Amino acid sequence: MVRENQANTHCRTDFPLDPGKAVGSAGVEIAVLGLGLIGGSLLKRLAGNAIGYDVDPATRQSARDAGFTVADTVDAAAGNADVTIVAVPLPALPDLLAQIGAIAKPHSLLTDVTSVKAPIYQWVRGPVRFVGGHPMAGTEHSGFAAADPDLFTDANWALCLEDDTDVADWLQIAEVVTRTGAKVVPTTAAEHDAAVARISHLPHVVAAMLTNLARDPLAKTLAAGSFRDGTRVAATRPELSTAMCQANEAALDQALEQAVRALQKARSPRRLKNQFAAAYEIRRNWPATETTSVSLNATKDELLALGRNGGWLESINPLSARLPS
Amino acid sequence: MVRENQANTHCRTDFPLDPGKAVGSAGVEIAVLGLGLIGGSLLKRLAGNAIGYDVDPATRQSARDAGFTVADTVDAAAGNADVTIVAVPLPALPDLLAQIGAIAKPHSLLTDVTSVKAPIYQWVRGPVRFVGGHPMAGTEHSGFAAADPDLFTDANWALCLEDDTDVADWLQIAEVVTRTGAKVVPTTAAEHDAAVARISHLPHVVAAMLTNLARDPLAKTLAAGSFRDGTRVAATRPELSTAMCQANEAALDQALEQAVRALQKARSPRRLKNQFAAAYEIRRNWPATETTSVSLNATKDELLALGRNGGWLESINPLSARLPS
Repeated sequence: MVRENQANTHCRTDFPLDPGKAVGSAGVEIAVLGLGLIGGSLLKRLAGNAIGYDVDPATRQSARDAGFTVADTVDAAAGNADVTIVAVPLPALPDLLAQIGAIAKPHSLLTDVTSVKAPIYQWVRGPVRFVGGHPMAGTEHSGFAAADPDLFTDANWALCLEDDTDVADWLQIAEVVTRTGAKVVPTTAAEHDAAVARISHLPHVVAAMLTNLARDPLAKTLAAGSFRDGTRVAATRPELSTAMCQANEAALDQALEQAVRALQKARSPRRLKNQFAAAYEIRRNWPATETTSVSLNATKDELLALGRNGGWLESINPLSARLPS
Repeated sequence: MVRENQANTHCRTDFPLDPGKAVGSAGVEIAVLGLGLIGGSLLKRLAGNAIGYDVDPATRQSARDAGFTVADTVDAAAGNADVTIVAVPLPALPDLLAQIGAIAKPHSLLTDVTSVKAPIYQWVRGPVRFVGGHPMAGTEHSGFAAADPDLFTDANWALCLEDDTDVADWLQIAEVVTRTGAKVVPTTAAEHDAAVARISHLPHVVAAMLTNLARDPLAKTLAAGSFRDGTRVAATRPELSTAMCQANEAALDQALEQAVRALQKARSPRRLKNQFAAAYEIRRNWPATETTSVSLNATKDELLALGRNGGWLESINPLSARLPS
């Protein structure tokens, strides 16, 4: 991986996409299963190449009324799809993945949008080739009505490269992801799960802890900005937070252990001062505003190194990658 | 304290304000010492009855250029004031309070806007009568340029009633506070400090902890909404966070102990589920949107009971109080 001198120079690298079967071209079907906030936004964004499905008839009707192509069964949506994107809540995934395994075309590609990755691999069945994904996008709203074709613009979208992932499969899914406006972050399920335990699941646990410590009326009345922001995600429906955290139990447990250790150290004034100073340097430079174009080959090692260094792909053909400066 | 049936009925209670010396009337001088975000916003809001002072000549000039009355020394600002509001950073307070003690008019009233209350009482000197205050308002900006006369509109403003506080003094300061658009929350320094340890200081420590656990490049790139909000206050200048927490060390230590205990319990999936469920109920009903008018007398006990029940005063003459429903 080579950093380029000119920040705006994009590099081009050939890679083995089958040009007769490029996703998004005529004849390639994308199925989006689950039309909530994420799946609905995908259907709205990929309309023209995509067919949707939702278990709820009223949601299917809403999507049809809005002009989208919607099937009435999983079979009708995913049975002929080249790429299937599952966007249902975590508890519904094992059954749906078993169902897809029974009806999917051989060699069809499957991806998901779930906030944990390692468990999903164990639920995949049948002849499909699975590439786990996770868009780092969302709002406090849910449902098809809240779906927005621009939801993913400039969002980071983790996409897993495991030991047995075919890079060509990965690049095909990555190409679909870039068409949503998102940036593709190559990672592994294990590294993703360890990172999101710290940047998403732990913040949910901490928000609940802060909320529960402020339950008395005086505290609730005096609470203002730092409480508002620090506890916002405690208003997430508790069954969603619980399912998300339980699915990533091992990584979250490590993060909680680190959190407890840090807070115990913070009881020493000298160490608290150091923690504030270190956090200030990190937080005021986050998110990174300066980026640099980098040149790389589409090999598993180079892609994973890009992700570990905080980088992402902005387009797949030509291959264009950037790192925070 | 009696809840009234009609939510919009304000009650009226007489109380011992000296009508010839009502704050804000001609002849009553308010000095605002320190013209940063809070003090500058107070000067802009109370202009006409207030004289400002700041240790920084450039800030004084900016305030004068904007048309406000500004003195060049503490003596000239506070020496003749009936009410002095100190709005300087915590580390500057002990010296300034000693200086005011040496020059203040006998029986003049003094208040502050500092985020901890108990330590301030120990630094007050001279013939002044002190009523500690804390507006729950602020932004990530600082300085006179960011000051806004509407900063306090609908903010809660804690005002301390101690064993030796004269209720008439307290009501005079409370009247000034209501003229900023804020709601006055009666409390004690000890109860205030215990509450803000949980709703403000702990959220700052937790934000630093979350930030420091996400220092690796992949985590920083994947971090999104829950990280952004949960860590926002980690971008506060670390010397301010450190000073704020150290001044409230005992109460913060208790809050940290409770936080550690809660996070240790969260490592049990069953308990985590319960924590999410409890927090959801609290957070989705915060802040309270429904309020009820209550009738009360301006006695120390009734005022403190109002604050402990999450209530506040909206006007002083007539006395108008509300509680979250």
